[in-house]
Amino acid sequence: MTLQRLCGWVIRKARVGRVLILEVCGNNTKPYVLALREDRDRDLFHIAEGLDIGSALCFEGDLAPLQRSKRGVEYSVSKIEVYAKPIEPLPVDISGKVPALLDTRIKYRWLLVRNPVEKALFKIRAGVLKAARKYLEDNGFIEVNTPKIVAAGAEGGATLFKLQYFEREAYLSQSPQLYKQMLISSFERVYEITPYFRAEKYNTTRHLNESWGIDVEQGFINSLEDVLQTAENLVVYIVDYVRLNYKEELEILGVDLPKLSTPFKRLKFTEAVEILRSEGVEVSETEDLSDVAERKLGEVMAEKKHYLYFITGFPWSSTGFYYMREESGVYTRKFDLDYRGLEIASGGQREHRYEKLVEAIREKGLNPENFEFYLEAFKYGLPPHGGFGMGVERLIMKMLNLENIREAILFVRDRTRLIP
Amino acid sequence: MTLQRLCGWVIRKARVGRVLILEVCGNNTKPYVLALREDRDRDLFHIAEGLDIGSALCFEGDLAPLQRSKRGVEYSVSKIEVYAKPIEPLPVDISGKVPALLDTRIKYRWLLVRNPVEKALFKIRAGVLKAARKYLEDNGFIEVNTPKIVAAGAEGGATLFKLQYFEREAYLSQSPQLYKQMLISSFERVYEITPYFRAEKYNTTRHLNESWGIDVEQGFINSLEDVLQTAENLVVYIVDYVRLNYKEELEILGVDLPKLSTPFKRLKFTEAVEILRSEGVEVSETEDLSDVAERKLGEVMAEKKHYLYFITGFPWSSTGFYYMREESGVYTRKFDLDYRGLEIASGGQREHRYEKLVEAIREKGLNPENFEFYLEAFKYGLPPHGGFGMGVERLIMKMLNLENIREAILFVRDRTRLIP
Repeated sequence: MTLQRLCGWVIRKARVGRVLILEVCGNNTKPYVLALREDRDRDLFHIAEGLDIGSALCFEGDLAPLQRSKRGVEYSVSKIEVYAKPIEPLPVDISGKVPALLDTRIKYRWLLVRNPVEKALFKIRAGVLKAARKYLEDNGFIEVNTPKIVAAGAEGGATLFKLQYFEREAYLSQSPQLYKQMLISSFERVYEITPYFRAEKYNTTRHLNESWGIDVEQGFINSLEDVLQTAENLVVYIVDYVRLNYKEELEILGVDLPKLSTPFKRLKFTEAVEILRSEGVEVSETEDLSDVAERKLGEVMAEKKHYLYFITGFPWSSTGFYYMREESGVYTRKFDLDYRGLEIASGGQREHRYEKLVEAIREKGLNPENFEFYLEAFKYGLPPHGGFGMGVERLIMKMLNLENIREAILFVRDRTRLIP
Repeated sequence: MTLQRLCGWVIRKARVGRVLILEVCGNNTKPYVLALREDRDRDLFHIAEGLDIGSALCFEGDLAPLQRSKRGVEYSVSKIEVYAKPIEPLPVDISGKVPALLDTRIKYRWLLVRNPVEKALFKIRAGVLKAARKYLEDNGFIEVNTPKIVAAGAEGGATLFKLQYFEREAYLSQSPQLYKQMLISSFERVYEITPYFRAEKYNTTRHLNESWGIDVEQGFINSLEDVLQTAENLVVYIVDYVRLNYKEELEILGVDLPKLSTPFKRLKFTEAVEILRSEGVEVSETEDLSDVAERKLGEVMAEKKHYLYFITGFPWSSTGFYYMREESGVYTRKFDLDYRGLEIASGGQREHRYEKLVEAIREKGLNPENFEFYLEAFKYGLPPHGGFGMGVERLIMKMLNLENIREAILFVRDRTRLIP
């Protein structure tokens, strides 16, 4: 057994007879438990006794021969160095005994991550990103970075954040959509993990104004099916990676993450409308599904054991200009990927024919001049392509059964929150 | 030899007697070379003959038994499928025979990446990010995401981009500085690879208004030396990773990347001032080094075989409020890491004592109330910590001997460029 040096913060201090127990949260998701006896470790005991909850320390120790503690990993300690003491009592309970309201959790996230439950969540979040990169790189996607300050929106004007860019007006990127398509001029497959900025005014449990996406685009596709397979394989890989590498964290969160299998069910938009109407939900044939409809559909699909499913063939009237339309002109090759009633990804096959694309921009009431830089890419041999953007927080929310998307991000930006 | 299916774009077509040569750029950095004989592969020959430069195709082929071509990897072809033809001649030469001006390169980057030289550059860029993540994760740093829309700037007001956040004013994040420090409340070590937004008005070869950084922060440090070691080990790891995994790309770029060794030279700011003055460069003792001074220092250091070196102990009058000051109050624990005359990273040990920090904010003429959310983190046991931000484009610029930082990024945002 070699001596280790470990660091962290005191989250619990308790005296049991002549033994003092210190729980320290650090790199481990579960706390380090230090048990000190007054008669044997007199000096250490006195250092530990004087520490407030919240103190930052490093200690040297060995794994204890008997792992008796259920609360964490027990160490025999030979040295304690105190690095910082709190100057005020902590405003939230870090031990996890007193549950905090969501508002408090959001305000004090940076502090609450000392709690094993919150730490588990953000360790898994990092794991999701790591898994996504691994899957995409192993499958020939190259990482790119596209600009976040842009001259035109990809998703329409209503949800754009406007900013002053020197003498001009500019916007924050709603998604790398247009840029990643342009890059299919030269790369077969690209991906980017990126912030999305959307000035959506509503305040729901499933929306953030600054969120993160896994953005993917692939060229030389034969049909939409190629893109659907990338999306489903990516999700299966991520879920499996978390299931296998974050067992302790899933246990702390009380989450049983089942192994997924492909193919996910492909449901046509028109079929979804039929199902929803037969359930008494009012649905338009020309608009995107509402949150309520999405949720209801999730319930119906769950009864059939479909927890993840594609909705394909959205009506042209409900989509962005860049989706390829079917011959009829009514439906498109846009899809959503839903996870138990929540859209976690949206994508499709794109229109790669220059003339058709210009026509589509006009038909959506937009001015092709504003998209000149983008349109040019379609003149020089842009192959058939498609892709999607997958919401990181939405995926995590569903994987971990979180009630509110705000639980899945360290610092929340929503209608009312600009700090911390 | 198994049949492969490969895709790409025609970048060169040449006829040599009865043989037609097609060079196709695809996932490989070097082109695929297809040699077709009119008498033997009549059908393929005719397909190939009809293709314009820029056409997108997939082909099935085997590696040719004799790899005669110096220009790329030669294949024997058994099938060609054409996916898209250009509707106009390409506006730039992709074969690399006609060098393009920087302005043109920036405008058509998405198209020029078909060129092996540009492709090599952006493959290496992706490799730099991959190497950085690998080093940091192997060394206990956890990936975090911090907000890009913020209520207060970390670097002072002059270079903030302002935006309208619903009813309030907000700014784009200049760096994750304040947020990553707050997270040292709960994580020992964090990192983020992130866009930086800085409204710097000057137009130089070393500045971008939207750039990317590798941001690192570590807690429980004993001294600044811990941070310097993380920074130098990270750079050495990245350079070594590129040197070993991107040999073909470095060869295409004509770059000989030497193996680096640690420790990098540590030069005190006061020593740097002395050196520069002895070289006849005017330098202030209280301000940051100018670009001109940085460059001159790079030359002097290069003569001593120091290509990468730290400048430590910047004067308090020249730094952000968050750096720890030495006892005297004149100098701080801020450092720059310079690579042949260019600052590629900046960081230091932070002030972690609440009272000292409030004092420092006031002394810089700022209002502590605007930093309340940040200051609060210092009340609850924030250990000694430090970190740095490393400019991705600046590092790549120096590694690959680029003349202008704009060469290191796919889409440029500078004083005059908002598109593409």
